[in-house]
Amino acid sequence: MTDIAAVKAALAGQRIETPSWGYGNSGTRFKVFAQAGVPRTPWEKLDDAAKVHEFTGAAPTVALHIPWDRVDDYAALASYAKERGLKLGTINSNTFQDDDYKLGSVCHPDATVRRKALDHLLECVDIMDATGSKDLKLWFADGTNYPGQDDVRERQDRLAEGLAKVYERLGDDQRLLLEYKFFEPAFYTTDVPDWGTAYAHCLKLGDRAQVVVDTGHHAPGTNIEFIVATLLREGKLGAFDFNSRFYADDDLMAGAADPFQLFRIMYEVIRGGGFTPDVAFMLDQCHNIEAKIPAIIRSVMNVQEATAKALLVDRAALTAAQRSGDVLTANAVLMDAYNTDVRPLLGEVREELGLDADPVAAYHRSGWAAKIAEERVGGQQAGWGA
Amino acid sequence: MTDIAAVKAALAGQRIETPSWGYGNSGTRFKVFAQAGVPRTPWEKLDDAAKVHEFTGAAPTVALHIPWDRVDDYAALASYAKERGLKLGTINSNTFQDDDYKLGSVCHPDATVRRKALDHLLECVDIMDATGSKDLKLWFADGTNYPGQDDVRERQDRLAEGLAKVYERLGDDQRLLLEYKFFEPAFYTTDVPDWGTAYAHCLKLGDRAQVVVDTGHHAPGTNIEFIVATLLREGKLGAFDFNSRFYADDDLMAGAADPFQLFRIMYEVIRGGGFTPDVAFMLDQCHNIEAKIPAIIRSVMNVQEATAKALLVDRAALTAAQRSGDVLTANAVLMDAYNTDVRPLLGEVREELGLDADPVAAYHRSGWAAKIAEERVGGQQAGWGA
Amino acid sequence: MTDIAAVKAALAGQRIETPSWGYGNSGTRFKVFAQAGVPRTPWEKLDDAAKVHEFTGAAPTVALHIPWDRVDDYAALASYAKERGLKLGTINSNTFQDDDYKLGSVCHPDATVRRKALDHLLECVDIMDATGSKDLKLWFADGTNYPGQDDVRERQDRLAEGLAKVYERLGDDQRLLLEYKFFEPAFYTTDVPDWGTAYAHCLKLGDRAQVVVDTGHHAPGTNIEFIVATLLREGKLGAFDFNSRFYADDDLMAGAADPFQLFRIMYEVIRGGGFTPDVAFMLDQCHNIEAKIPAIIRSVMNVQEATAKALLVDRAALTAAQRSGDVLTANAVLMDAYNTDVRPLLGEVREELGLDADPVAAYHRSGWAAKIAEERVGGQQAGWGA
Amino acid sequence: MTDIAAVKAALAGQRIETPSWGYGNSGTRFKVFAQAGVPRTPWEKLDDAAKVHEFTGAAPTVALHIPWDRVDDYAALASYAKERGLKLGTINSNTFQDDDYKLGSVCHPDATVRRKALDHLLECVDIMDATGSKDLKLWFADGTNYPGQDDVRERQDRLAEGLAKVYERLGDDQRLLLEYKFFEPAFYTTDVPDWGTAYAHCLKLGDRAQVVVDTGHHAPGTNIEFIVATLLREGKLGAFDFNSRFYADDDLMAGAADPFQLFRIMYEVIRGGGFTPDVAFMLDQCHNIEAKIPAIIRSVMNVQEATAKALLVDRAALTAAQRSGDVLTANAVLMDAYNTDVRPLLGEVREELGLDADPVAAYHRSGWAAKIAEERVGGQQAGWGA
Repeated sequence: MTDIAAVKAALAGQRIETPSWGYGNSGTRFKVFAQAGVPRTPWEKLDDAAKVHEFTGAAPTVALHIPWDRVDDYAALASYAKERGLKLGTINSNTFQDDDYKLGSVCHPDATVRRKALDHLLECVDIMDATGSKDLKLWFADGTNYPGQDDVRERQDRLAEGLAKVYERLGDDQRLLLEYKFFEPAFYTTDVPDWGTAYAHCLKLGDRAQVVVDTGHHAPGTNIEFIVATLLREGKLGAFDFNSRFYADDDLMAGAADPFQLFRIMYEVIRGGGFTPDVAFMLDQCHNIEAKIPAIIRSVMNVQEATAKALLVDRAALTAAQRSGDVLTANAVLMDAYNTDVRPLLGEVREELGLDADPVAAYHRSGWAAKIAEERVGGQQAGWGA
Repeated sequence: MTDIAAVKAALAGQRIETPSWGYGNSGTRFKVFAQAGVPRTPWEKLDDAAKVHEFTGAAPTVALHIPWDRVDDYAALASYAKERGLKLGTINSNTFQDDDYKLGSVCHPDATVRRKALDHLLECVDIMDATGSKDLKLWFADGTNYPGQDDVRERQDRLAEGLAKVYERLGDDQRLLLEYKFFEPAFYTTDVPDWGTAYAHCLKLGDRAQVVVDTGHHAPGTNIEFIVATLLREGKLGAFDFNSRFYADDDLMAGAADPFQLFRIMYEVIRGGGFTPDVAFMLDQCHNIEAKIPAIIRSVMNVQEATAKALLVDRAALTAAQRSGDVLTANAVLMDAYNTDVRPLLGEVREELGLDADPVAAYHRSGWAAKIAEERVGGQQAGWGA
Repeated sequence: MTDIAAVKAALAGQRIETPSWGYGNSGTRFKVFAQAGVPRTPWEKLDDAAKVHEFTGAAPTVALHIPWDRVDDYAALASYAKERGLKLGTINSNTFQDDDYKLGSVCHPDATVRRKALDHLLECVDIMDATGSKDLKLWFADGTNYPGQDDVRERQDRLAEGLAKVYERLGDDQRLLLEYKFFEPAFYTTDVPDWGTAYAHCLKLGDRAQVVVDTGHHAPGTNIEFIVATLLREGKLGAFDFNSRFYADDDLMAGAADPFQLFRIMYEVIRGGGFTPDVAFMLDQCHNIEAKIPAIIRSVMNVQEATAKALLVDRAALTAAQRSGDVLTANAVLMDAYNTDVRPLLGEVREELGLDADPVAAYHRSGWAAKIAEERVGGQQAGWGA
Repeated sequence: MTDIAAVKAALAGQRIETPSWGYGNSGTRFKVFAQAGVPRTPWEKLDDAAKVHEFTGAAPTVALHIPWDRVDDYAALASYAKERGLKLGTINSNTFQDDDYKLGSVCHPDATVRRKALDHLLECVDIMDATGSKDLKLWFADGTNYPGQDDVRERQDRLAEGLAKVYERLGDDQRLLLEYKFFEPAFYTTDVPDWGTAYAHCLKLGDRAQVVVDTGHHAPGTNIEFIVATLLREGKLGAFDFNSRFYADDDLMAGAADPFQLFRIMYEVIRGGGFTPDVAFMLDQCHNIEAKIPAIIRSVMNVQEATAKALLVDRAALTAAQRSGDVLTANAVLMDAYNTDVRPLLGEVREELGLDADPVAAYHRSGWAAKIAEERVGGQQAGWGA
């Protein structure tokens, strides 16, 4: 038997961080399609993020990307956020959009480039100090395109050295979150291609180094929930980058491609004790062809729905069936929760929080889309590289 | 027993088309790294292509991409090419870099956009008339990102309608070559995702519609040489876009990721009677981090090496082993050819053509790279979208 | 607005064929685990199939596999089926379990083996005549394991020749259904590896040759619903073999691994006019570790649930959103149907048919499992190869 | 410049272990094809293995599989091996072919089954003591087929507990080698699915626990040489199971599907200091349709050829190009070695060892195949499960 009140309380307390860059334009190597009303500054991104939080009640923090969100006065940015009911969240570094980084950043064969990359990472910690952010998320585009291009092992040595220097610089309440990715933009080796590599590095760094699971960064067929369970068991799951994919790192809306997988992941999170503030639930997506703000609202809702279903699993019945080796019943207990339509339950949770039961409809009624399309004319829209 | 003289003659006659856009800058969605000396105009692209042909003797035609290579006077461009020992080759259409194409081109739900795309395709045939190009290569970025986004079947109807109109417009000696791609930039459905779809459309269009096999456009594990053999058997193999990949459509140098696969493909080409001018051998690659001209020279050489090995297969011995069901001997006969170092043989072929045995070294000695880096300053470098 | 009465009527009329071999033991190359009560004869398989139909009301036909289900008197078998409310369905050939078939069957290099395989296929048509079966389902394990092992193209010629002879033998109301498979048991080339190959052969054979889509027989990431839509558009979708997979041809219960995919497939079936008796909906699964009869019941229910959701899609709203290019709304309309809990609706449909709303529970209460475990002792359990 | 004498010495000293089960019959779940002359006992397997060593000079040890190779007197078996110039090698456990193991072995929900599995593993160590084997190789078929079937995390706890007990029992000069596998026979979760999981367990066990890389046990596209480099850097690469694959765990002859990959792996082995007796080079393959002994000889030769090419890499030139960021030259240096035909060099190495330059031809001339086909009649051929 599931305690519905407890489920509702858990859902009411869930927090999902949205990425500042999700509000900007994005695309593929073939084309970035511009959208009307897209923010032109970090401040406007916060305005949009505030709308997502206003209608979902679940997205109070915003991840920043440096240098895309570089401002002169981070305290002012934090205050601006606060006035809108937001907090600045994770700081994301960028060591892939300068010409110097053609052959890598912290793994580059040239020490000068490595130093430049390291300086950027240390600057990110400075910014964390200024914004009060707790987490530094590191994703490296480093890798090679051709066999022989560089020495795979030396690149690991360089990586370890760079990470150690960043880790040293962290404050006691700050974390280094290391993200792995199967491939892209590197097409032969990637310097942190899998959870094992990220885990091995974090283990050597120390307790405040943990692994980020981006749900689009795995080989075809990889069982992501197994990785989640394993990292939780090892005390090394730091954060999620949610998005979804049919093929590679498609960066579609979380839950759009395989809602059952998202449910299974959330089940392992809850079962493994990961449904706490110690695991950061972030979105990291690209809304290339769909309207960005409602797509982010929908993504938040998709994570909530997967969470609700995972919370509804009858754990006692599941354990009993598992222990007795009853494969079909155990599977059926899990599927009963998945097959439940949790939208009414989440509607109730929202209404009890004073929100509209349907955040997308409420957003559309708000007139925000028309307003920004009208007002945000001129200037340079934010986007990849901006 | 293989007839070495015949092999050498075949190799001396092999022609590989290079893509104008391969000389320009390219990259991933994360970053396009600029390179010194990259061409700024179609004319400069031809200058570079002429160097590839000068040192390899095997790349006398250049594929154009419209609108990237749009000029006022195509006859002048053709003359310019001719003066450099080149001919203008396949015309490649582009229906993916206008804002209108966000939801597709010939498959777009809006008839206005479909009409625009069709007009572009018809313009490409006009250009073919002007340049004397025989082949129109159609690759569509069309598809959807989300389940439900559009009607999969109606998109096929729209596609069929558009293709029919282009086909009608072709001259008697012109071909429509339809390229398929597994995914990217569309992330849920792609409107021509596999050879079967391209084949079905070409079948309905008529004899002058054929399929293009891009070696990077398949699902993981797909046996490309089987497709090649099948399309040849059906009389529907029109052309190759060579490149290579470890993961998705990585667009690395042909033969770089899996030289054995390239050999197997070339073996099926030769065995299936496809080593004729009726099958166009083109490169379609992106040299994101390596120097472009020598990368293209290397790619031409990689195709030549795979071809040489395929020509060296002892067909009589192979057939005998196959017929007798001797699995290991049949495999060994094929591997004997693959394991042969054909570089000396190709060196001889080149020298007999009056070329340097080592095209890359000859290119480096030529001083061309330094010359263009110095001269091509200012202006807008060519690249994706330019 | 969806017409619930029409949905219920459609669901009440849905028919799903179960495979006789699904009731027998199965396993992987590592181990076949025996289960208590597993049938020892075709007659006992029908007894079990009758239970599935008794509790679901949706599984009145049983596919046979020859020679596993070879009996002396097919008319008697058909009568036996009829007494249990069943009909004999599709005849499945087997050209992979004789030693002669080590290098293939209809594609074998040796004409003697090809003849033997062909004779078997013709025998299957004889059996169809005796049982009244309308469909002959052909899946070939043919292929090669090593490059060079056999001539890929000649194998296609042999295949075409064999298929033509079988097709000729068919009666006017009989169909040849050709199944494709990506790989396994062949590990280099498979002679019918993809829908394109099956389609090309069927096209040449004639109208009564159609393609079978087995949901486990694709490369990773393949969009199966696109293939379904395309085959329906071409009039060449003959049947489904439902099962599910996380990795390769795992043969798990239909809908177990990706229920959203099954829904999308059923949506394209319905949208494309394939929800008719002309498309055969069959299960083809292996219940290696779970109890077989309830696993088949569950699979039937999973297909029904996916169908119910697909029927609930608000087609008018979907079309409106698609036509207007509203990506998020179109996706939301589809997801609304998917997120609906259709179990109550299906419970009603069953009760209106005089069935228990919960077929699994009803089966468990029936005592059948205990009865067969007790009675079916001695003899040789049915299984792969038996 | 490469020191050819050193390369030859290294090649002359290379040792590749062959698996006793590779001499027996094997197959897929669809069919095990029997071959004439296949051994019926562990003693006959050693006779065959002695032939492989006789003609290659590189395969002096044979891995045993318990219980398939269980004998009453292991000392006698060791002596028998010694008389034939062989030594008994790695002991491989089997916890997947008893009915009890349907839901797992050391990870089974039932403690009784776990105890049985553990007892078997401890017996394997007893056998190691008797045979003088240094390495215990553990591969577990454990996993689940359906979401919810068992608790993923508890299974890890059970695994850790079992491994710890085996590790404790090891002698000071014995190693526990833990093998991971992506999937099969489990189709949802596998309890040791990737190198990260194996690594994490080995790290906790201690220095004598190391990871086995089976080249067929990865997700599509996985960069195996990266894993090899990483495990060597971590001091945790214990052994290889060589074989090759186009799709899943196809278990084809090593080097047959992707000889370039095998070369890249061997390059990382050598570069990372792994070309020592501390890393065990084993074959683990299934010769389903090809003659087994010559297939194993060919596999040994394929590994030798890849090794020879890897040894020929001009390391100084490679490092220089890598350090200078010259992508094309660095790749070219590697490819120069790969493109070299090393068969003459290996022929010389063999002749200097008093062997025939062509081991396959020598084997065929020996008459062994005819002899065993004639003599080994009656009895039960060895194979999977026997």
